[in-house]
Amino acid sequence: MRLSSFSKHPIIQAPMAGGTANPTLAAAVCNAGGLGFLAAGYKTGQEVREEIKQTRKLTSQAFGVNLFVPSEDTVASTTLDDYAGRLEHTAKRLAVSPGDAKNDDDDWETKLEVMIDEHIPIVSFTFGCPAPSVLDRLKQSGSYVIVTVTSPEEATEAAQAGADALCLQGIEAGGHRSSFQNNNETEDFSLLPLLRLVKQQVDLPLIAAGGIMHGQDIAALLIAGAEAVQLGTAFLRCPESGAKPLHKQALADNRFSGTTVTRAFTGRRARGLKNAFIQQNDEAAPAAYPFVHYMTKPIRKAAAEAKDLEAMALWAGQGYQMALDLPAAEIVSRLVEQQHEALQAQKRL
Amino acid sequence: MRLSSFSKHPIIQAPMAGGTANPTLAAAVCNAGGLGFLAAGYKTGQEVREEIKQTRKLTSQAFGVNLFVPSEDTVASTTLDDYAGRLEHTAKRLAVSPGDAKNDDDDWETKLEVMIDEHIPIVSFTFGCPAPSVLDRLKQSGSYVIVTVTSPEEATEAAQAGADALCLQGIEAGGHRSSFQNNNETEDFSLLPLLRLVKQQVDLPLIAAGGIMHGQDIAALLIAGAEAVQLGTAFLRCPESGAKPLHKQALADNRFSGTTVTRAFTGRRARGLKNAFIQQNDEAAPAAYPFVHYMTKPIRKAAAEAKDLEAMALWAGQGYQMALDLPAAEIVSRLVEQQHEALQAQKRL
Repeated sequence: MRLSSFSKHPIIQAPMAGGTANPTLAAAVCNAGGLGFLAAGYKTGQEVREEIKQTRKLTSQAFGVNLFVPSEDTVASTTLDDYAGRLEHTAKRLAVSPGDAKNDDDDWETKLEVMIDEHIPIVSFTFGCPAPSVLDRLKQSGSYVIVTVTSPEEATEAAQAGADALCLQGIEAGGHRSSFQNNNETEDFSLLPLLRLVKQQVDLPLIAAGGIMHGQDIAALLIAGAEAVQLGTAFLRCPESGAKPLHKQALADNRFSGTTVTRAFTGRRARGLKNAFIQQNDEAAPAAYPFVHYMTKPIRKAAAEAKDLEAMALWAGQGYQMALDLPAAEIVSRLVEQQHEALQAQKRL
Repeated sequence: MRLSSFSKHPIIQAPMAGGTANPTLAAAVCNAGGLGFLAAGYKTGQEVREEIKQTRKLTSQAFGVNLFVPSEDTVASTTLDDYAGRLEHTAKRLAVSPGDAKNDDDDWETKLEVMIDEHIPIVSFTFGCPAPSVLDRLKQSGSYVIVTVTSPEEATEAAQAGADALCLQGIEAGGHRSSFQNNNETEDFSLLPLLRLVKQQVDLPLIAAGGIMHGQDIAALLIAGAEAVQLGTAFLRCPESGAKPLHKQALADNRFSGTTVTRAFTGRRARGLKNAFIQQNDEAAPAAYPFVHYMTKPIRKAAAEAKDLEAMALWAGQGYQMALDLPAAEIVSRLVEQQHEALQAQKRL
């Protein structure tokens, strides 16, 4: 089965976790001829099941669900205590305390069962590649399985594990890096070289992700060899997006000087708008996911309530200034139009 | 005048300093229908004049010369002493001492006079944007002036200063980052988002540079809006390239696990193969160019003589594994063929 059988246009809406990629957004993208995605990360299996049901009420098209593969970070409790100590200042200002630095597996087993019960058309993974037996079970139940990768080595591993397609995430992407390992050894590949290097090694459909905001870039990436593209930040400001209103506003706020990749908020590297929280905590943040995520959670929540952009995690890709406050269907149709214009311009040469 | 009037193909050979982009390589690329470039960096004005004369004996085509804009780094001598102390261990192993941490302007004024005397068809700049009066003088003498930039802000500055075209260098590029400032504030834009964001702001011909190793990527970048592309690493292993034989071999040596960006060798950020020198010194290296360049120079030279790949600066872009040991003319013709194939494949759709 080809990826193109799932949607009219080769445009995939990225599974932005934390409430952004909700049923409303996913269904709107699907109904506009793109491929919508739900984000299962941070939710319980039961919550994901509810979102799937809701989405099915809103669209008859195929959609995807993305799961976080459980992390294997180990970290000394003293390291976590040190970081909690550093967060005290910001926490106190917001009248909260840092959260418990707990570990969990993001309700992994339950979510897998939900995927199988619900016969989800497309299941994608972030933060790792599940065992071949897991991919196999999903495929047996009818799912098309995508693994998100950030390097040629991860691409080879995912292909060997049995993925149907790969989503290649370049360093320009907003939000979490999908690298299998949470260390400093992973090379930060930009999207085009990543696509080129993976194409040399792996014969699977490839989805290009990271920094894509315009149909001219979609045309470019299809010519470079991608079968489809995935866009997150481009849909972040849509009225259907579940991102916090402050987050949406921040993308259009010229007080921010750009984005950076940091572990400060969750212990895993992620790209967001540079703000005071990152400046204060980036260097000290340990590679400890989801421990750090739980530590900063009350702070981020309180910051959002206090409308304090300097202590929120404002995920954004490098092209964020081009994100538009338009309905998802209009975003899709603009992208398609720009893509066709770019290809037509080329054909005339 | 359009950039395309200088060469048959929209393929520019990057001005790799340190001896790589010599008259032989530049002329070979020009004679194959690309646009060759000399690198004036690290050379005296007189040496550059000699190279220009040599190049003119080897080709009748237009070629370019790239100049380093003098740096304005200021650094405490104790910081430099600390770094010199750290280098002692490697230096001793190679039976040399770290060099004097001197400053210089890379013979800037003389080189500008040479450019004007010699009526160089294309002059490009790295590490900054010269004053409008300097660009003006070059343009008056018949040069087409290109400024290399790494961010939309730098692009706007260069456009306002009067550049005829911009070379956009993505973070995937090998060798030195061309950022105007040598600090940690500069965002590391990947090529595609950089191209998109600059196109929104600046109406000048744009050259795309960084990680390009295949004609399919050239086709993609032209569709994305570039007027030409610039490739360095793709030409590094050519027999005409003046890169050290060990450097050429290292690109094909699977002992290296990839590239990284570091200040360890010169005090300015540059991408090269990850080796022991970088691992040992990256974090301590001060933002002090060209001071650090001169400190590590004897070490790098001795390492090359001792065939010690772990203490050499092995500049390489992210796609370096695809660099081929083929004559430059063959590289150009392969790239052109791949580019046309990619466009033809698209036209059939």
